[in-house]
Amino acid sequence: MASIKPSVPKGTRDFSPTEMVKRNYIFDTIKSVFRKYGYQQIETPTMENLSTLTGKYGDEGDKLIFKVLDSGDYVTKIKKQYDVFIPVLNKLINKAYRAANIPGNEPDYHYWISIGNRYEIVKQNWIAQKIDLAQAISELDIKLEDLNITGYELGLDSKSLTLDISEKALRYDLTVPFARYVVQHQNEITFPFKRFQVQPVWRADRPQRGRYREFYQCDADVVGSDSLLNEAEFVMIYDEALSKLGLKDFSIKINNRKILSGIAQIIDKADNIIDLTVAIDKLDKIGLDGVIKELLERGFTEADIDKIKPVILLEGSNTEKLQSLRQALASSEVGLKGCDEIETVFGYIEKCPLQTAKLELDITLARGLNYYTGAIFEVKTNEVVMGSIGGGGRYDDLTGMFGLKGLTGVGISFGADRIYDVLEELNLFPAAANQSTQVLICNFDKEGELYGLPLLQQLRHQNINAELYPAGAKIKKQMEYANNKNIPYTVVIGSEEIQSGLLAFKNMETGEQEKLSVENIVKRMVG
Amino acid sequence: MASIKPSVPKGTRDFSPTEMVKRNYIFDTIKSVFRKYGYQQIETPTMENLSTLTGKYGDEGDKLIFKVLDSGDYVTKIKKQYDVFIPVLNKLINKAYRAANIPGNEPDYHYWISIGNRYEIVKQNWIAQKIDLAQAISELDIKLEDLNITGYELGLDSKSLTLDISEKALRYDLTVPFARYVVQHQNEITFPFKRFQVQPVWRADRPQRGRYREFYQCDADVVGSDSLLNEAEFVMIYDEALSKLGLKDFSIKINNRKILSGIAQIIDKADNIIDLTVAIDKLDKIGLDGVIKELLERGFTEADIDKIKPVILLEGSNTEKLQSLRQALASSEVGLKGCDEIETVFGYIEKCPLQTAKLELDITLARGLNYYTGAIFEVKTNEVVMGSIGGGGRYDDLTGMFGLKGLTGVGISFGADRIYDVLEELNLFPAAANQSTQVLICNFDKEGELYGLPLLQQLRHQNINAELYPAGAKIKKQMEYANNKNIPYTVVIGSEEIQSGLLAFKNMETGEQEKLSVENIVKRMVG
Repeated sequence: MASIKPSVPKGTRDFSPTEMVKRNYIFDTIKSVFRKYGYQQIETPTMENLSTLTGKYGDEGDKLIFKVLDSGDYVTKIKKQYDVFIPVLNKLINKAYRAANIPGNEPDYHYWISIGNRYEIVKQNWIAQKIDLAQAISELDIKLEDLNITGYELGLDSKSLTLDISEKALRYDLTVPFARYVVQHQNEITFPFKRFQVQPVWRADRPQRGRYREFYQCDADVVGSDSLLNEAEFVMIYDEALSKLGLKDFSIKINNRKILSGIAQIIDKADNIIDLTVAIDKLDKIGLDGVIKELLERGFTEADIDKIKPVILLEGSNTEKLQSLRQALASSEVGLKGCDEIETVFGYIEKCPLQTAKLELDITLARGLNYYTGAIFEVKTNEVVMGSIGGGGRYDDLTGMFGLKGLTGVGISFGADRIYDVLEELNLFPAAANQSTQVLICNFDKEGELYGLPLLQQLRHQNINAELYPAGAKIKKQMEYANNKNIPYTVVIGSEEIQSGLLAFKNMETGEQEKLSVENIVKRMVG
Repeated sequence: MASIKPSVPKGTRDFSPTEMVKRNYIFDTIKSVFRKYGYQQIETPTMENLSTLTGKYGDEGDKLIFKVLDSGDYVTKIKKQYDVFIPVLNKLINKAYRAANIPGNEPDYHYWISIGNRYEIVKQNWIAQKIDLAQAISELDIKLEDLNITGYELGLDSKSLTLDISEKALRYDLTVPFARYVVQHQNEITFPFKRFQVQPVWRADRPQRGRYREFYQCDADVVGSDSLLNEAEFVMIYDEALSKLGLKDFSIKINNRKILSGIAQIIDKADNIIDLTVAIDKLDKIGLDGVIKELLERGFTEADIDKIKPVILLEGSNTEKLQSLRQALASSEVGLKGCDEIETVFGYIEKCPLQTAKLELDITLARGLNYYTGAIFEVKTNEVVMGSIGGGGRYDDLTGMFGLKGLTGVGISFGADRIYDVLEELNLFPAAANQSTQVLICNFDKEGELYGLPLLQQLRHQNINAELYPAGAKIKKQMEYANNKNIPYTVVIGSEEIQSGLLAFKNMETGEQEKLSVENIVKRMVG
């Protein structure tokens, strides 16, 4: 076997033991909160039928789906029609003409095989000029090997070829597989169905800092309940999970699509809601003047802007904002409905005060507008400069794409990779003693190794993660092993220790060392 | 969007909440034992470079690897040479001839473009017969649409096309990615490196009962230590994990490749070791007579069989078997080395008696012989008819395929899907209260819902998984929800309950019902 310099595909990552402990800590924390709120875990296959995924993420999204080649002799599935070869034939004849130094090889002359009358032209031309095509082609023949044709020149195009040779694709997110799951298993499911799912997804994006081609998503959704209690509980879930992870200052921003619709309605531009929200979404970055400039560019009038301005510049507490909003949206039924919904969510949360999070009504929040029909969420930490660490919202008719109408859904997602970076930067990962080895039993020789075995077993019976270093290595190497693995305690067994029955027990952090019996070592570790 | 009947690709599975709880139980149990023995978790990407995987699993294995289509406009990477089109041209001309009812279209006549002299033949033929090819082709033209060419006729073949359009593939097992990981990260790793990994793998096998195209592997390996303590610890890991899972009667079979080499050596047929082991591996199924018949067919002599027979028919305790084996293999150095190794492993285990497992020396055990160089393991339950639920062994030079020589490895794998089926059949899955909702708070209306919120929060503060059913549903529906989700307790809040402050607390299993204050409900649940 040839030696290959090993690497992973770009945009993908190995996770080392240290990273795994930290990742597990994040996922386990979030999962435990999901469970506490009654969410149940499901898993869906890595591969979905390509037809399940295409058309759900827009044209750009479709391109970013990783397709899996059909197994077996898939080329037999490629179907092409004859006429795609005409350009290839043209090229061949062109080359033959050139080889024979024959002028006049305009494109028309080369359609000698496709269409009756064009064939005629070529034929007459050919016979009239007495071209020694035989010679031309025999010269050409020598060069055939050099002449490669790409699949593109062959008339293949990637998009339609993919349909011939790929039936399956890698999951692009967890929402579409969840919708597929709900429709497929609708008869086994009790609604409202509260599910969570923590699995990797794949996107053929250009990899860059913080953006990977394989990354975990961490989603909870409820389907089949239009109660706003669900929205309120998602706010609590964010609050509880991120508080548990040690975050001390973060904001949960909430908005409602209906409020955005209301704003478009009061200026009589319901059709321009996308333009409107794209512009005001930038308030943070470009300020009010920037937003106004952009609105004017997008065809809004000064009169429109006068009406919108107070809405964009909402200030004060959430209650004050809602009050102003109600006044501004007084003429829009849908806008007032949005205010009602937000108020109901706030009402639930008043009954269950949040631990840490600041809950903020933010009418500039629009993420994935086309998708969401009610509440929209986004979570940001205020301790570190970082994009949003969570988001979600309500989407009516989640399962309509698979033929099951009228099921409303609302869900949230945690950005696990970003949360990882935040915890790392704030030094919030706990010592992970419970996941790694706690004692290493070292020895000078086979005798010490065998002497250590019963101690090893006693420790493990007490559920202490313990290791015995195999005989034959220098003590220095064994200690290095303990250090590199961050093992907090070591026991050294030499001939003296065996004779006395008192083993050298060392706290690797403090360097403190004692002589202890097997019994006392076990007690100390269980302690 | 068109409505699609939703399904998953064949050989893949959705896992429902109930299944996930059970699967998590198995994986968590095994992981906790791995950790207790000092193994650390890693994860590798789902996709590996195709070059990392090909050539590691044999030709048949290579075919079963799922390849991922390159993203972007991959057809431009397809490179074909002109001469592959000759059959296509032939076909075209044939069709033209047929359309014009011209006889004499033997294959030779159609090489009009490729080679000089063959072109001549066609040309003369053509001119001599005054074929109205123009007409032929114009008739042909009408039928062009019907005439499809497959990729195969186009001269493409799946194997070489794959190399053009696929750089990545799905992980086929965890061992090769682990070897790649070790070589890639060798400078960050402390050896001996004890790692475990629990991730799905994919194989384009024909799906059948119990065989899936996506399934989890659950592996522990240590690399960089030739100590037989590792082998002994794997026996203990199997024993502890399977005992924890509730199995009461299972066998861990152990063999050693060196013993098999020794047997081949004493009959002077070291080169026929594969034939030998394939035959004696069948002892269970076809009995001694069958094995002898097969050995004779495979070219072994009666004299060979006389020498082998006592080895195959070893009986008694492991110690007795080893004794007989030593006598039989007295003339084979490598055979005796194998006996020494097995004896050392047994020696370690004597110091740490097993909880449940029967440890059996089984010299007919050969699994993956080409791979293993020392110990070979296999685990079977004796309670249920089922294939092996675990296996593994030592393989010297694990990382040689990636250019890092001289690192020996030994590892085991748990067959999670089979273990699942065994626990299901023996009814060994525990009630999963800690993973699912423990209380459902039901209500008659909005007032009851709001009244229930503080109780909900108090329960969750006590780490009780609890849910509040959103207002607006009939009590019957809420109770059904509790039943379907196996929620053991419910609280019902009506106007009477709100007035009295005593809520209806119900044990869903016994049907027993009491009136309790919020405080007492919390106390009862924390219990």
